[in-house]
Amino acid sequence: MSTHPLALTAAAQDLLFREARTANAFSAEPVGEEQIQAVYDLVKYGPTAFNQSPLRITLVRSAEARERLVKHLAEANRAKTAAAPLTAILSADNEFHEELPQLFPHYPQARDDHFAERPVREESALLNATLQAAYFIVGVRAAGLAAGPMTGMDFTGVRKEFLDDDHTPLMVVNIGRPGENAWYPRAPRLAYDQVVTTV
Amino acid sequence: MSTHPLALTAAAQDLLFREARTANAFSAEPVGEEQIQAVYDLVKYGPTAFNQSPLRITLVRSAEARERLVKHLAEANRAKTAAAPLTAILSADNEFHEELPQLFPHYPQARDDHFAERPVREESALLNATLQAAYFIVGVRAAGLAAGPMTGMDFTGVRKEFLDDDHTPLMVVNIGRPGENAWYPRAPRLAYDQVVTTV
Repeated sequence: MSTHPLALTAAAQDLLFREARTANAFSAEPVGEEQIQAVYDLVKYGPTAFNQSPLRITLVRSAEARERLVKHLAEANRAKTAAAPLTAILSADNEFHEELPQLFPHYPQARDDHFAERPVREESALLNATLQAAYFIVGVRAAGLAAGPMTGMDFTGVRKEFLDDDHTPLMVVNIGRPGENAWYPRAPRLAYDQVVTTV
Repeated sequence: MSTHPLALTAAAQDLLFREARTANAFSAEPVGEEQIQAVYDLVKYGPTAFNQSPLRITLVRSAEARERLVKHLAEANRAKTAAAPLTAILSADNEFHEELPQLFPHYPQARDDHFAERPVREESALLNATLQAAYFIVGVRAAGLAAGPMTGMDFTGVRKEFLDDDHTPLMVVNIGRPGENAWYPRAPRLAYDQVVTTV
């Protein structure tokens, strides 16, 4: 491990990365709307291309909606999602360009110059909403909560059930305080030299 | 703005999100290998599906390599990249499954059960390496540095020049201390109600 000090405090490093873990079990403590607002008000500043900000978040709160979601998840993800205090469906808005004149005021023509074509928008929305999904996971941890992101699901089913043709689901995230036996032992990571090369 | 307190300190919120900005100009101060090692040793803990960790990082340090990179960038990204202290090409390793038995020891068969097919791997590597690209941007900021992520480039050209068929380029990131007039005024963000719905 490098000994070079980061500007970020050790406590914050632990909160966001070193001690934070993907939770598979949660306590019964509810997650309030104001907590998700605080998370959003932080992570909305994370960078995206042209500030396009294509991430959309569907909070699954009602028992009825949770039941509709769980049936589209992989078997291994059902029980923990049924029991989580709060679950969020993260999706990419393929029509994000409509907001670009508001979001990128120093170049409002970007909407028409760069994003007139739907396939271009879909590719850009996928990349940038996924970046924002990562910021959101970091933000959930910044709130002192645990995140349980999942991609094991029938995406077509989730899309039909909760979204529309303009929104592509990326993942589902359980959110709450970790419960008992919330996670597996920490799995190993790749060494620096397996990941980084210099040219 | 929400007034709900986050667990993360205000100083850390500022460092990573509120005050951090995408830099378009950098000081001459170099970025050392040990700084990138410290960033990696932090953000390697960010979650990915099956801990697949598909992000790969190519650090462009030599003048010769920088010249080869700049010619594939969009015109607007050339001068600032030519002058940045350090530039990283972030890519997704579509053959990440070879490391899965090491990375996901409690289910080593995941490699064959889930990732035998290349198109499945490509889709998964794209999503998960993009999550890791966001963690990396956050990590650069955690080191007290500014990041300048860019997707304006000839991706096919960058791939041929620096990567291979097994690696898909995602973005290029300039890294350094911000220079003079390093950024545009902060652009507006979407309101909470434009992004979040509850069901």
